[in-house]
Amino acid sequence: MNSWVDGAAGSSYDVDNLPYGVFSRGDEPARVGVRIGDFVLDVAPVAAGEMLESAHVFEAPSLNPLLALGRPVWGSVRSWLVGLLSDETERDLVEPNLVPVDDVQLRMPFEVADYVDFYCSLQHATNVGRIFRPDQEPLKPNWHHLPVGYHGRAGTVVVSGSPVRRPRGQLKPADAESPTYGPSERLDIEAELGFLVGAPTAIGEQVPTSAFADHVFGVTLLNDWSARDIQAWEYVPLGPFLGKSFTTSVSGWVTPLAALDAARVELPGQDPEPLPYLAVEQPAGYDIDIEVVLNGEVVSRPPYSAMYWAAAQMLAHLTVNGASLRTGDLFASGTVSGDDPGQRGSFLELSWGGKEPFGDGRTFLRDGDEVSLRATAPGSLGGRIALGEVTGRIEPAE
Amino acid sequence: MNSWVDGAAGSSYDVDNLPYGVFSRGDEPARVGVRIGDFVLDVAPVAAGEMLESAHVFEAPSLNPLLALGRPVWGSVRSWLVGLLSDETERDLVEPNLVPVDDVQLRMPFEVADYVDFYCSLQHATNVGRIFRPDQEPLKPNWHHLPVGYHGRAGTVVVSGSPVRRPRGQLKPADAESPTYGPSERLDIEAELGFLVGAPTAIGEQVPTSAFADHVFGVTLLNDWSARDIQAWEYVPLGPFLGKSFTTSVSGWVTPLAALDAARVELPGQDPEPLPYLAVEQPAGYDIDIEVVLNGEVVSRPPYSAMYWAAAQMLAHLTVNGASLRTGDLFASGTVSGDDPGQRGSFLELSWGGKEPFGDGRTFLRDGDEVSLRATAPGSLGGRIALGEVTGRIEPAE
Repeated sequence: MNSWVDGAAGSSYDVDNLPYGVFSRGDEPARVGVRIGDFVLDVAPVAAGEMLESAHVFEAPSLNPLLALGRPVWGSVRSWLVGLLSDETERDLVEPNLVPVDDVQLRMPFEVADYVDFYCSLQHATNVGRIFRPDQEPLKPNWHHLPVGYHGRAGTVVVSGSPVRRPRGQLKPADAESPTYGPSERLDIEAELGFLVGAPTAIGEQVPTSAFADHVFGVTLLNDWSARDIQAWEYVPLGPFLGKSFTTSVSGWVTPLAALDAARVELPGQDPEPLPYLAVEQPAGYDIDIEVVLNGEVVSRPPYSAMYWAAAQMLAHLTVNGASLRTGDLFASGTVSGDDPGQRGSFLELSWGGKEPFGDGRTFLRDGDEVSLRATAPGSLGGRIALGEVTGRIEPAE
Repeated sequence: MNSWVDGAAGSSYDVDNLPYGVFSRGDEPARVGVRIGDFVLDVAPVAAGEMLESAHVFEAPSLNPLLALGRPVWGSVRSWLVGLLSDETERDLVEPNLVPVDDVQLRMPFEVADYVDFYCSLQHATNVGRIFRPDQEPLKPNWHHLPVGYHGRAGTVVVSGSPVRRPRGQLKPADAESPTYGPSERLDIEAELGFLVGAPTAIGEQVPTSAFADHVFGVTLLNDWSARDIQAWEYVPLGPFLGKSFTTSVSGWVTPLAALDAARVELPGQDPEPLPYLAVEQPAGYDIDIEVVLNGEVVSRPPYSAMYWAAAQMLAHLTVNGASLRTGDLFASGTVSGDDPGQRGSFLELSWGGKEPFGDGRTFLRDGDEVSLRATAPGSLGGRIALGEVTGRIEPAE
């Protein structure tokens, strides 16, 4: 059944979507909202009026209290919301609490505990290997055996719309004898999906692939802004650090994992077969179409369905050593790139290391550029649901 | 002036030390304590009785509220504590709030925001390079130009005394064709110093080396437990991940930076001269003597004074790209190793990659092993102050 909310039925924000965010309006305190059509449902007063046991979590300026309640509550809250927004008899109760989305400000929707970034696209990893190490095998021997990942900086994850300041740092052009200090000249995007952990675990616990949906609450688009020149000089042997840690952007709306049930697809195939702790039940992939928009023009269309490693495998790997999970942990897929050149999720690949300008003749990001990531996926009502957009504009180095 | 507290005068916990921790006793709520001699001062009631403006922060089960107050308050609280504990006329007020240290349980003293691990010992980095890559230059070209670092997992930082479970994961012996799954067979320690950030910064701000003491509250000993076999297979190209993320131990006592003023020494020397943003005023090093104790026997004595990069340089580098700091950020020095074989801060180096057994004929950690890190430094009263010990015992893989 579709929503009775004006304009919601058949839109990309019908009752098969219902992403969560944190919004504020004027001087009112920030609290949890759910998007329906072009409105935000102010959940707290409705939940309080209906004496919902979990009503208090919607008054928080963060999704974390809701995340901590775990999957059974996520499920019952979602069913309740679907009822409210599709059953016409609820209109009188709900309508006074619908706010036009243009009237609210979206805040950072969750507090990030630990942030991990994976490297799970075969096409992206292969492209990067060819660009950075043209005389070697593009993939390292471990790549097909495990989802390669590393920790990023949780404190600099920001919500869509936050400015992105061009970072300064050490740069060393290949022909220079020693490094110089200055603004990055190879500022880039990485189009990724982020997975948000709700239910925590204790140290020593492993999360099997089958328990993925018990722990992961939802999904956000994620732009892992990257300074390629800083990264290239610093990353051997301990991995990327300042080339990534200045800013990571996530969307203001978190799509519940349940909303992506209709988007599940089989993985493209894994060879060799992974070790048993990484075995996963199909369909373990997601058919999510991403668009990279530069200053209003679509410059790439990365397909999430092309990803080699499943999100459930990333989580099982992350915890195989007994590392605990906390509410608010965020792990990202790594750059999503498809087989075609028009499906590459970074400027590094789109410009082939800066050697083949694309679009308006560019290689990397210029000051003033605005980049948005958008995405849609099949919804359970037969149409497509939208993931929350993530946008950032490049400000000059200070 | 020395302390009037029984046994404190001339000990390694006199009023020139005064480390902070979080303690609990029986069923009482955890709160902030300060160590003096073999006692813990229960600060909250004394501070409340004296109407100290910041009294509430001592009732918290974490140092973070105190950390957030910033350097001027850290300084005035320290002066107040020194007065209380060295002025005999305060005895009647203070004595009822002294608890024998053996009667309390020490908790994790702070909530970790982001955790970064550096790699700042020339001797350690050289040893590791020689062991892992014997046919190459031991140091990568960037090593002398910047303090190499990476992000670790904040959620698995635990307090001294917490068990250390041997992790499982993917291992690939050099002669095997593909990886296997199992418990790490090369479990190791890394003897490090951790620096705890109190005063935060906004995104875009850089912390110059001269502002180090405005942001860093204090120091803890840190054992960065490492699974060398997991690490060796996973770490190219994005750095260490599961080989490190299972557990990191810190001491229950945080030594205020001010207590280490008398321990400041010149760095051993940097060549080439670092870029201007890394220039640092001397003395920028710390003369801290560490001991690695395995099952009660001292097996190594790493000297912190040998570190190539200063902590102020680590912080300036960490923020040079505009990455913000949060209260509770923790950054560690990397393994401390000196010139002599008896000064190496990891079993990897002490056993030269497992080829030269040491001590009781061992190479890496066995189940049941207990490792403690201890350290002392010159104090301002002419003796030596102790840093809080950090201990962990290896439990078998589950």
